Amino acid sequence: MFEKFDLTKTVDDKTFDTSLPALKEKLGILQRTLRDQNIPTIIVIEGWNAAGITMSTHGIIQSLDPRGFTLHATDKPGDEERARPFLWRFWVKTPATGRIAIFARSWYSRALAEKLSNVSWKKLLKDEIISINNFERQMSDSGAIIIKFFLHISKDEQKMRLLERERNPLTAWLVTPRIWDFHHHYETYLPIIDEFIENTDTVYAPWHVIEATDRKYTILKVYSQLVKTLEKRAAAAPGELSGKRKLKASASPPKNPVRRRSSAVSSYSKEECQKTLDNLQIEMLELHYLLFKRKIPFIIVYEGWDAAGKGGNITRLARHMNPLGYHVLPVSAPNDYEKNHHYLWRFIRHFPKAGHFAIFDRSWYGRVLVERVEGLCSEPEWQRAYREINEMEQDYVTSSGGGIIKFWLEIDKDEQLKRFRQREADPLKQYKITEDDWKNREKWDLYEPAVNEMLARTSTRHAPWIVIESDDKWYARVKTLKNVIRYAGDLL
Amino acid sequence: MFEKFDLTKTVDDKTFDTSLPALKEKLGILQRTLRDQNIPTIIVIEGWNAAGITMSTHGIIQSLDPRGFTLHATDKPGDEERARPFLWRFWVKTPATGRIAIFARSWYSRALAEKLSNVSWKKLLKDEIISINNFERQMSDSGAIIIKFFLHISKDEQKMRLLERERNPLTAWLVTPRIWDFHHHYETYLPIIDEFIENTDTVYAPWHVIEATDRKYTILKVYSQLVKTLEKRAAAAPGELSGKRKLKASASPPKNPVRRRSSAVSSYSKEECQKTLDNLQIEMLELHYLLFKRKIPFIIVYEGWDAAGKGGNITRLARHMNPLGYHVLPVSAPNDYEKNHHYLWRFIRHFPKAGHFAIFDRSWYGRVLVERVEGLCSEPEWQRAYREINEMEQDYVTSSGGGIIKFWLEIDKDEQLKRFRQREADPLKQYKITEDDWKNREKWDLYEPAVNEMLARTSTRHAPWIVIESDDKWYARVKTLKNVIRYAGDLL
Repeated sequence: MFEKFDLTKTVDDKTFDTSLPALKEKLGILQRTLRDQNIPTIIVIEGWNAAGITMSTHGIIQSLDPRGFTLHATDKPGDEERARPFLWRFWVKTPATGRIAIFARSWYSRALAEKLSNVSWKKLLKDEIISINNFERQMSDSGAIIIKFFLHISKDEQKMRLLERERNPLTAWLVTPRIWDFHHHYETYLPIIDEFIENTDTVYAPWHVIEATDRKYTILKVYSQLVKTLEKRAAAAPGELSGKRKLKASASPPKNPVRRRSSAVSSYSKEECQKTLDNLQIEMLELHYLLFKRKIPFIIVYEGWDAAGKGGNITRLARHMNPLGYHVLPVSAPNDYEKNHHYLWRFIRHFPKAGHFAIFDRSWYGRVLVERVEGLCSEPEWQRAYREINEMEQDYVTSSGGGIIKFWLEIDKDEQLKRFRQREADPLKQYKITEDDWKNREKWDLYEPAVNEMLARTSTRHAPWIVIESDDKWYARVKTLKNVIRYAGDLL
Repeated sequence: MFEKFDLTKTVDDKTFDTSLPALKEKLGILQRTLRDQNIPTIIVIEGWNAAGITMSTHGIIQSLDPRGFTLHATDKPGDEERARPFLWRFWVKTPATGRIAIFARSWYSRALAEKLSNVSWKKLLKDEIISINNFERQMSDSGAIIIKFFLHISKDEQKMRLLERERNPLTAWLVTPRIWDFHHHYETYLPIIDEFIENTDTVYAPWHVIEATDRKYTILKVYSQLVKTLEKRAAAAPGELSGKRKLKASASPPKNPVRRRSSAVSSYSKEECQKTLDNLQIEMLELHYLLFKRKIPFIIVYEGWDAAGKGGNITRLARHMNPLGYHVLPVSAPNDYEKNHHYLWRFIRHFPKAGHFAIFDRSWYGRVLVERVEGLCSEPEWQRAYREINEMEQDYVTSSGGGIIKFWLEIDKDEQLKRFRQREADPLKQYKITEDDWKNREKWDLYEPAVNEMLARTSTRHAPWIVIESDDKWYARVKTLKNVIRYAGDLL
């Protein structure tokens, strides 16, 4: 792909001086338009070392209101970032609605920097391309604009610029041996980058390769591409673009129905249960130490009917774990800050770091449960969510080396009613029952198909759903702990 | 202080078995009461290595709903944390209203670990005591409960426990040479810790030293102290405790009035201004590189009348900086998530890391401006804020080695009216003027004394206010840049 670019392109001063001010003004206006339309924008600026990434970034932001964008200068990951899956650090930086996130270097540079040193880099990079394309498609589907630039210069040009930087005492220290090393292997990296770009050049997140030899030409081309793309999008009626990739509603029933039942085949007395739990606890504590030592993270998701016993189950499970090695994340309706981001954003931010457990009390599955049933998102949105969630979970497992297990706590409708009444009658438990619980109960029949479809479409090899028969809460607690031990143990 | 503790205390099994269940139940109920009363709780568990910090933590959380607390296991700081002032990493972890934050080790262990290796550790620790006391007082004043435990064991007991851990293959790797080293210097550290505890034992955040030789005794005492403290607080009428330390309203006028004026003595034409700015820009860029290289952070605060030109001023200032080295933080009313924290929390989280600039477009001074004028906080709250802000800024400067400069953009009432009308008349600028602006303008006379008091009471040597005469916006821009260069340059 690179060979088709003419690196000798320049622009004369007159064209530059007459074209730029108009583009700058347009960009400023576009920023405000996109803000008013609540559209988040992601701008990626990549390129060879010394190709002008800082200069181009500086150029763009001249016209932007600094209160409306955030610039992320991507470099080596921090230790919080290194302890999490590769894309995590970028996910958490995705812009809120109406804001612009500019990435000066991005997941592309980091994927190259972090994978190429590995012997199996070809395979790793291939996996990364899938993850990146999924990530960008999900962003785009949620309404974000993504624009990617690659600043292209020749090896000779690069050498000249690096030498120039070395001569300036203010910038000399920035030219590290690593940068020279990369320069000397320019020809080796060229086809790798070429392929990387080609495989991530998509309709929803296209690349613009910029011939970056002449600085004025570079600035002008970056500006005009940016303005062109944003203008097109700002002019489109809201929702029009995302509508294009609308999925057909799945009329057919799910292919792999997951059997649900609320009462277990066997049962335990409270005493038997306690004894079994005591034995399992030792296993669990040892397992927890080993996962911590080997830096393997693990995610546990709890979903289930109201009053199915999620709270009690989580409390009991947590007792068997090292308190320093897990976090419980209670999930309720998103607050106004969270609502301004991709629906997965608020969960991904809380993903556990290497060696830790995260227990989600309700989760991203809200999208296909409460949000679907209550009409809090559109049908295309929840239809799309099954795939998005599967991709996200698979990517998590692959890139973190960790695991995900999901528990569905099942009780039947009569049992729920019994428990609701018990709660109302007990002064110590009254706080557990609210108006909302009764309202949700009225919608039981709407939740039924949503639960079935969720279990069928998102129970995967890497992140299975386990139905916990919860009419008998002692049985439920033992089964949960056993499954955590089994699935987390498999990771060792 | 330590000598008065009898480390041979034990508890018999019967007392333990009869007392604990009742305490556990009480703690569970208290958690819900405090949640309903929106009281945040901070529990600090400190102590000698192997004194039982993990065990005690584990003990406490047995009775807590895991969805309502977060456990912070404090260890070496991550690189994001290391790049910021000492207390930053704890500030950002302070609990939201109704939640409990448990710190297994805390700012105390870290202060010792990070300061003792320095030759001037005595001075450093003394400074830290002031910072910590301020931090805890501020938390308490905002309504938080703070309970601190120190688990005390003898040197012999510690040795026995460390050897025991080494014998267990699951825990052996946790006993590092550093821990043995600390053990061998037990007698050296004892008086230092003693003094540290004594100097941070305050009415608002008292220490409880626990004789931690007998494990059951330890658990029981931690539990009963915890329950006792929380019960006392849960029983108090809301607001009663914070009222006790209510400040008297300052009836007397501020002592160091800061002169404000809106029109400058000298002025620039747009062309002169451009030329001066061009020259200053070179200085600014060099300065920015040097601050980055030496890892010095810098905070710039903008406050001022509506239409005084904050936005334009920030945009121009930002243009002269390296785009990778600063963040602009637009501040508006706190969202519901932020409202559940201490009012300084949402700003402190965004403090710049070492080598970076943070530009706050409006700031924590909202507490003594809009929140005071609009009655969004009580009078004791904004009265207290002057001191809290001064402490916070001073602590920032001392502990980060960085600087803070604050600009007040002054225009007079007529000039504001002129600008409002211009904005309304210009289709490109209409977006800048809203209903709120007109409403705020009506309250000009209420803002006047608030501005005066703020400037007088919070202009300090370490974080001065600079009044920017902004009737002439070109003059204002030059003066701002000059002052940033001057104050940031002083840090080199």
